[in-house]
Amino acid sequence: MSDRKALDIVTADAVAAAHDRIEAIVHRTPVDSSTTFADMSGASSVGLKLENMQRTGSFKIRGAYNTMAQLSEQTKDRGVIASSAGNHAQGVALAGDILGIDTTIVVPEVTPAAKIEATRGYGAEVIVEGKIYEHSYEYALELAEEMELEFIHPFNDEGVIAGQGTVGKELIEQYPTLDTVVVSIGGGGLISGIATVLKQHDPSIRVIGVQPAGAYHAKPSLKRDEIRELSEIDTVAEGIADTRLLEKTFTVIREYVDDVVSVSDLEMSVALTLLAERAKTVVETAGAAPVAALLSDAVDVRGEHVAAVVSGGNVNLTEHGELTRTGLMHLGRYAEVEIAVDNWPTGVSAVTTTTESQGAELDVLERTRRTAQDDPNRTPIRVGIEGSGTEHLQSVIDALDSLDELSVTSHTLA
Amino acid sequence: MSDRKALDIVTADAVAAAHDRIEAIVHRTPVDSSTTFADMSGASSVGLKLENMQRTGSFKIRGAYNTMAQLSEQTKDRGVIASSAGNHAQGVALAGDILGIDTTIVVPEVTPAAKIEATRGYGAEVIVEGKIYEHSYEYALELAEEMELEFIHPFNDEGVIAGQGTVGKELIEQYPTLDTVVVSIGGGGLISGIATVLKQHDPSIRVIGVQPAGAYHAKPSLKRDEIRELSEIDTVAEGIADTRLLEKTFTVIREYVDDVVSVSDLEMSVALTLLAERAKTVVETAGAAPVAALLSDAVDVRGEHVAAVVSGGNVNLTEHGELTRTGLMHLGRYAEVEIAVDNWPTGVSAVTTTTESQGAELDVLERTRRTAQDDPNRTPIRVGIEGSGTEHLQSVIDALDSLDELSVTSHTLA
Repeated sequence: MSDRKALDIVTADAVAAAHDRIEAIVHRTPVDSSTTFADMSGASSVGLKLENMQRTGSFKIRGAYNTMAQLSEQTKDRGVIASSAGNHAQGVALAGDILGIDTTIVVPEVTPAAKIEATRGYGAEVIVEGKIYEHSYEYALELAEEMELEFIHPFNDEGVIAGQGTVGKELIEQYPTLDTVVVSIGGGGLISGIATVLKQHDPSIRVIGVQPAGAYHAKPSLKRDEIRELSEIDTVAEGIADTRLLEKTFTVIREYVDDVVSVSDLEMSVALTLLAERAKTVVETAGAAPVAALLSDAVDVRGEHVAAVVSGGNVNLTEHGELTRTGLMHLGRYAEVEIAVDNWPTGVSAVTTTTESQGAELDVLERTRRTAQDDPNRTPIRVGIEGSGTEHLQSVIDALDSLDELSVTSHTLA
Repeated sequence: MSDRKALDIVTADAVAAAHDRIEAIVHRTPVDSSTTFADMSGASSVGLKLENMQRTGSFKIRGAYNTMAQLSEQTKDRGVIASSAGNHAQGVALAGDILGIDTTIVVPEVTPAAKIEATRGYGAEVIVEGKIYEHSYEYALELAEEMELEFIHPFNDEGVIAGQGTVGKELIEQYPTLDTVVVSIGGGGLISGIATVLKQHDPSIRVIGVQPAGAYHAKPSLKRDEIRELSEIDTVAEGIADTRLLEKTFTVIREYVDDVVSVSDLEMSVALTLLAERAKTVVETAGAAPVAALLSDAVDVRGEHVAAVVSGGNVNLTEHGELTRTGLMHLGRYAEVEIAVDNWPTGVSAVTTTTESQGAELDVLERTRRTAQDDPNRTPIRVGIEGSGTEHLQSVIDALDSLDELSVTSHTLA
């Protein structure tokens, strides 16, 4: 590890220059003040910095544009290349479209067609190569050398870090009472930029990083004071599923970030669900990580003014629906109930009238196959019901079970 | 019909006074500039005024607070009453909580427990009475008289209209180039307030109302110059499922609103889907109506600077998931495919590897029951797949159908 200092990599002045460069291009995303999350976390106030509402659906356009705008004319003419299956791809592609720079993006084979379309929609040439991201990355580096294209790294780049820092600069203006900011870490570009500008503005502002428990490398790296690389990762939060920091982000994070905590995939799913239900905002799993940290015991923010950076919202809607049902089940707001009805199909009406009279929403109702455990004189059905909480759903289940026409055989309520 | 003028009901000054009264209480909701909707509608720019991010999840708190803050001390001490199964209930309840006024809300029997809980959460007393809303309304009026409680009407009230008008006042400040604003109409309180402040600011700004085709009474009322009441309504957009305007809103709308158009439930579902996917925002069906109008032929906004008021976001998440799947199917982005596989279960792997290699997301996969039409030597399965568009999904279906191990028996792709 070099003995470089954070200031050798990025300064508040560099972030201010980045801000001037990108402000006509990017959205100044809103800070949504959330009474719900303040109440749930014990904070005095919680502001959600909604980078999911940024152009391309994530903060990545800030850094990509800042770096690409500063390339020499000759380099711009030759074009740039990047590897990414996700938000960085769209950031580079849109920046290229605006700046008139040809962009090539290498994506791994498993990339959904919808993400490839979105990237092509910004005018990028997309090359599908590599079974996993690392292979796409290597291939992009080879192509960069071969075709003399500038490689735009997703995070280990001074211009990218300064560009992401503009999120922090906006926060200072939008939320001047800020005590603590919570930011997710994948490769560390976003938190490096934000920490730089906040710490140089006011060193007493706490900067907390969050990683998925299944991709938790930053804290171990800080503890040993050297970059730790994970041999495998396991998380639903693809946006921050990186295996390691790199030299530049490690240097900045080591100096400026106060602590790094981890959250589970389930905690992120619950946070994503509450963000949809209470804050009315669609986030990808990675974007929910800071709120998940606030709602866990991992970070103590009692009495503080806290910002959670919601980094992105690029998630396909069927996946989002799956995650919110998972979250609702964990919150005791959704249950699947297996029921044996005496008379098919007329016995079903006892189910529908009971859920209706109890004020529960009947989501699905389906006949299932009888198993060896089921009474051959009963017909098994499965229903999914949404309610106001565990107590309510339990009362619905009890009401169903008390009926003569049927019996509840099992349910998912905790 | 009286010969009252709009100015007898609400003025820009009354809206300005409302603004001063409520600005420390309500959120100044963001205007999200949407390139996507500008491109799709041909507008120069589209700004989404996100009242779904308002406290209580809709604009209703603005009007309720404005009226309740102006009650006499004696009236405040006795308390207020309202009838509503939805957003007005939460608006009145929160306003009461902040102002220290006891609130009673009468809700119909079918009201979901979650909505009752949310209203009770703001400290309101909730009374469940009436099979349909009209019965709850009548009961609330009776109780108001009996118990000397002030009845807070959801829209036919000067203070409520002036309060909702603060949305328009903010729009003038946030979006000074505004040419046209599109606003949904249920009973007409929101559009009455907004139209008043905009037309008094600049009469050339167009104000367009939107209603569901299944609750389309305002345009007929304007045509005949008298209030028309619908005998029945049929729409998924509960937030604007009213049967009629009332005298105050009719008077203002007649004078200030340029046109009223209708949108179908399917158009609203598609707009709700695009708002989630592209604008990353969760809206209730009524909240999607203005965007649905922009994307239809109903309103011509080519070359204009347009605001769409997204009025609310109170929808339960399982319902939201159902609506977005409907929307994706209409957009050619989701298909259900019935497949007959030769060998169960090994033949299924041909399905999963093909969808994966084609970059489609496999949402559900289930074995279904063989019917008389199905070959007894094949096993029927049903899959749900999400892709980038009709062309992509058709190519996935063709790829599946070309396999030796199975045949596609039917699909939902248009």
